[in-house]
Amino acid sequence: MSLPQTHQVWLLKTRPSDKSIPNEFDLTTRRTPIVEDLKDGQVLIKNTSFGNDPAQRLWMDGSIDPKRLYIEPILVGDPIRVSAMGTVVLSKSENWKEGDNVYGDGDWAEYSVLNDSGPLTGKEILIDGQSPYITNSILGLTGQTAWVGAYKEMDLRPEHTLVVSGAAGAVGSTLVQIAKKIIGVKKVIGIAGGKDKCDWVNSIGADACVDYKDPDYPKHLAELLPEYADRFFDNVGGEILDTMLPLIKRHGFVSVCGAIAGYNDDGFKLKHWGELIYNRFTIKGMLIFDHADSLDEAVRDLTKWVKDGTISNTESETVVEGKLEQVPEIYNKLFSGGNKGKLITKLIV
Amino acid sequence: MSLPQTHQVWLLKTRPSDKSIPNEFDLTTRRTPIVEDLKDGQVLIKNTSFGNDPAQRLWMDGSIDPKRLYIEPILVGDPIRVSAMGTVVLSKSENWKEGDNVYGDGDWAEYSVLNDSGPLTGKEILIDGQSPYITNSILGLTGQTAWVGAYKEMDLRPEHTLVVSGAAGAVGSTLVQIAKKIIGVKKVIGIAGGKDKCDWVNSIGADACVDYKDPDYPKHLAELLPEYADRFFDNVGGEILDTMLPLIKRHGFVSVCGAIAGYNDDGFKLKHWGELIYNRFTIKGMLIFDHADSLDEAVRDLTKWVKDGTISNTESETVVEGKLEQVPEIYNKLFSGGNKGKLITKLIV
Repeated sequence: MSLPQTHQVWLLKTRPSDKSIPNEFDLTTRRTPIVEDLKDGQVLIKNTSFGNDPAQRLWMDGSIDPKRLYIEPILVGDPIRVSAMGTVVLSKSENWKEGDNVYGDGDWAEYSVLNDSGPLTGKEILIDGQSPYITNSILGLTGQTAWVGAYKEMDLRPEHTLVVSGAAGAVGSTLVQIAKKIIGVKKVIGIAGGKDKCDWVNSIGADACVDYKDPDYPKHLAELLPEYADRFFDNVGGEILDTMLPLIKRHGFVSVCGAIAGYNDDGFKLKHWGELIYNRFTIKGMLIFDHADSLDEAVRDLTKWVKDGTISNTESETVVEGKLEQVPEIYNKLFSGGNKGKLITKLIV
Repeated sequence: MSLPQTHQVWLLKTRPSDKSIPNEFDLTTRRTPIVEDLKDGQVLIKNTSFGNDPAQRLWMDGSIDPKRLYIEPILVGDPIRVSAMGTVVLSKSENWKEGDNVYGDGDWAEYSVLNDSGPLTGKEILIDGQSPYITNSILGLTGQTAWVGAYKEMDLRPEHTLVVSGAAGAVGSTLVQIAKKIIGVKKVIGIAGGKDKCDWVNSIGADACVDYKDPDYPKHLAELLPEYADRFFDNVGGEILDTMLPLIKRHGFVSVCGAIAGYNDDGFKLKHWGELIYNRFTIKGMLIFDHADSLDEAVRDLTKWVKDGTISNTESETVVEGKLEQVPEIYNKLFSGGNKGKLITKLIV
């Protein structure tokens, strides 16, 4: 296969400090790797799509001590790491050959070098009637996070009342479905931004959805939780977290998966921290890397549920087509609330 | 015994909303109960001393839904509940007789009605060479909270590095001693306000103490924690909590016992909430009421340690003498940093 000698790669220009993410990158030209550049187990792929994850914002945030991060940070001048899908064009892997469609840790670039092993690496999974991006959404980091949250972190049970913030997001919308359709949780309440998103969260199984853009949303939440929430899965932090603190049941559990509010601002204010004390609940941060031994089981379960139609993936992606030049702009929709379910960038030439 | 027909009682005038606590009470005259007013198991005591606890501030805070509190709130017009010690002057109890020195839930008043049963109720314990207020400090709510924190909440072990905020306070100073002198925790670091308090915290066993009034204290803390803290026992919340979040070890544990910062202000700001996620630690609120079955063991242990001299109580109280009129003013020293160890009000006529 004949490859271009050079290709385009996005590099981090300045570390993000506010919401103006699309201005903080440089699109540069780099030599395209040749087969001699690859190590054993590596392949070069031509990227076809990218998953967009709030965590990428965190990796670029140079204010965090690298020792405190769970992966290598993205430093100024580095390519932007991303969950990439693409077609193998050069291979030094025994597992993957040219033409295979695979996914793994790539970069915002036309071509990426991938390793053929790792917890979030593999061949593309295609299921009839489902989106081709399913490997990067329900079956990928996103769905695995929701599965781990439900079974390993929150120990969700049918008698629970569950609240999910960011319920229209990638992880949140999958969790709403697992909780309601698989575990049969008594009451599942989503929190999302806008009537459109809330209608969608209700349509995928939530018993109710509260629109945080309505100034009265704390009152609506309280009315929906006369017996409080046994479990709260928080994808956003900030004011929504603070609003939920007085609504967590005594000895309840808060699973903290994300803090978009915290990533893009200089922190946030908590007025109800005392609730943690006098109602003795637990708040715990989560990442799927702590559950590497369970991820095969997660993917098996999720694949089964998608195949038998229990969980719907067809609607739960927002796919945006764009050229490589538009990748940062599309990424930024995560922070402006521009997606339902997983935000996928489909690369076009 | 001849009792006065009336006596003085402090009532809540307005719910506290800022630090001006001493202005928010009314000293009023009430009829002194007679024996016919007492129920079975109740006694009337003449109060001799009061424990001062930050939690009392919480009980008066009418902004909290009573269903969310662990005890009845103190409403406007109510007497101020307090951990009281005194001498029985009327008894309808089979356990306590006139002249007994006892402690339990009383009021800011000359006389209080006490029940002779309950987890924090009993006869005064006197130990040679120890303060007469020991029942209300190391052997009372205070010491029991430290014991529960060490053994039941944090599962402290010798290999741990422990940080204690409010380390010069009643609970904090007892915990420092239990951790270092009993459990033999590898490194115990206190956080306290001012050199004088820090010197004292060091003298009771801490390996180091950081003065939060020094603007460079976050740097000092970080230097003392190159391997981070396995356990953080937080008595204060606010900026100190935020400063500690990047210093909690991956998969570590934060036991939240108090939030003085949160009680007296309109919340506080957190800039490092994301640390909870990418280092997956746990934050849990605690109250000893969840460990009622263990409190007898706690008191046995604490009594033994005080008797054999392992834990020092002689220095770990700040006893302020005052008339009933001065009780709110003395209480307020809790929030202006005016005490080392337990703040005790000794009533004088």
